[in-house]
Amino acid sequence: MTSSDKPDHVSDAPAGPKGIAAQDWATAAADPQYRAAVVDLLGALAYGELAAFERLAEDAKLAPTLADKAELAKMASAEFHHFERLRDRLAGIGAEPTLAMEPFVAALDGFHKQTAPSDWLEGLVKAYVGDSIASDFYREVAARLDSDTRELVLAVLDDTGHAGFAVEKVRAAIDADPRVGGRLALWARRLMGEALSQSQRVVADRDALSTMLVGGVADGFDLAEVGRMFTRITEAHTKRMSALGLAA
Amino acid sequence: MTSSDKPDHVSDAPAGPKGIAAQDWATAAADPQYRAAVVDLLGALAYGELAAFERLAEDAKLAPTLADKAELAKMASAEFHHFERLRDRLAGIGAEPTLAMEPFVAALDGFHKQTAPSDWLEGLVKAYVGDSIASDFYREVAARLDSDTRELVLAVLDDTGHAGFAVEKVRAAIDADPRVGGRLALWARRLMGEALSQSQRVVADRDALSTMLVGGVADGFDLAEVGRMFTRITEAHTKRMSALGLAA
Repeated sequence: MTSSDKPDHVSDAPAGPKGIAAQDWATAAADPQYRAAVVDLLGALAYGELAAFERLAEDAKLAPTLADKAELAKMASAEFHHFERLRDRLAGIGAEPTLAMEPFVAALDGFHKQTAPSDWLEGLVKAYVGDSIASDFYREVAARLDSDTRELVLAVLDDTGHAGFAVEKVRAAIDADPRVGGRLALWARRLMGEALSQSQRVVADRDALSTMLVGGVADGFDLAEVGRMFTRITEAHTKRMSALGLAA
Repeated sequence: MTSSDKPDHVSDAPAGPKGIAAQDWATAAADPQYRAAVVDLLGALAYGELAAFERLAEDAKLAPTLADKAELAKMASAEFHHFERLRDRLAGIGAEPTLAMEPFVAALDGFHKQTAPSDWLEGLVKAYVGDSIASDFYREVAARLDSDTRELVLAVLDDTGHAGFAVEKVRAAIDADPRVGGRLALWARRLMGEALSQSQRVVADRDALSTMLVGGVADGFDLAEVGRMFTRITEAHTKRMSALGLAA
């Protein structure tokens, strides 16, 4: 729908939102495939937030000070409130939240299992990388959503302060001991690899979602466009890592 | 401090709050020993909430269903918000929150280390027992506090729904398999024993706090009264356990 268009401005720009993006949920949801895709998307995001809550709460145990611990607990709590909003929306559109989340449990749990941080700094890098990739993904997808769903997705993307906190602590640690940078760069690479491999698993499994993500070609989805989306997200990651002082 | 004073009436009730309980924070805090006791108390409660957050988030991993997991994450998040209120109050009265919490880290971490639940039901019983004991303790202490601190303590005691949720799940599990009851009864006994032993450690260490808890005898605190407070809390625990179908 929007794939090759000029960027869609939500404001009063001359070329307003088109297609789905110009519709509200009630209108857009008349298309059962679109509806299924949104239930998938909200289910994936909801479980992502719940898993992020658990990850951050777990990482809080690694915090070197009580203030750091409180900071991570705060982030975890923010993720939980995002989860609540997504779950409530699922219930509000008549979808069973647990059923909507189930298809994404294996991929997200797999990701977290494969990338359990072994210390505080690895945990911070993971929070930062995970959050940034999630933000990029939310933004990619927001443009393809009806106005009501878009509003929700952008609201849960709302900065929870993770990035600034993690960046500051990681930079200080690298300044104090430059060898830390090499180790964390490897770690960030591993995180990105694992994120991509789990995402591809989801894309392969969930047709309606994948079709929407790549712009909704009616007769199937464009694998090349999926690839381009992954490339954009990877490139943004690389830039962030080098800004952090880590060669990605 | 409060023991033999004439009543200071705040309201027009015949027997209103007396002594410290009739004062606001600004008045009560003029006594440095009272001030120190409240900083201790808020520090202990704040770290207790932060530790409870971690414990519940950890237990959420044991949840058999996504809905149960979300329920525990919600409780964890509620504990975190209690922590925030206590920490903000500490900062508001000019105390450094981290310093105020530090003296209680060893006892609370010790408690949680000694009582890591091995499954979902043990986690629920622990959440229930821990919460109930905490509530009993908050109520005991609230009566001895100035009006501003009392209001805060009663607010963070505000039911977060733990009890109802845990009781329902534990009852159902015992109904389904009565042998579960025996195991959980032993577990609850161990929790109570560990809680008492860690509390006694705190009482022995923190003079100002202990003195306030037992009604503020100026020249030291009355060990017999500490014993009676522990007895009241233990008896309430025993009653709750038998209501739950567990012999305590």
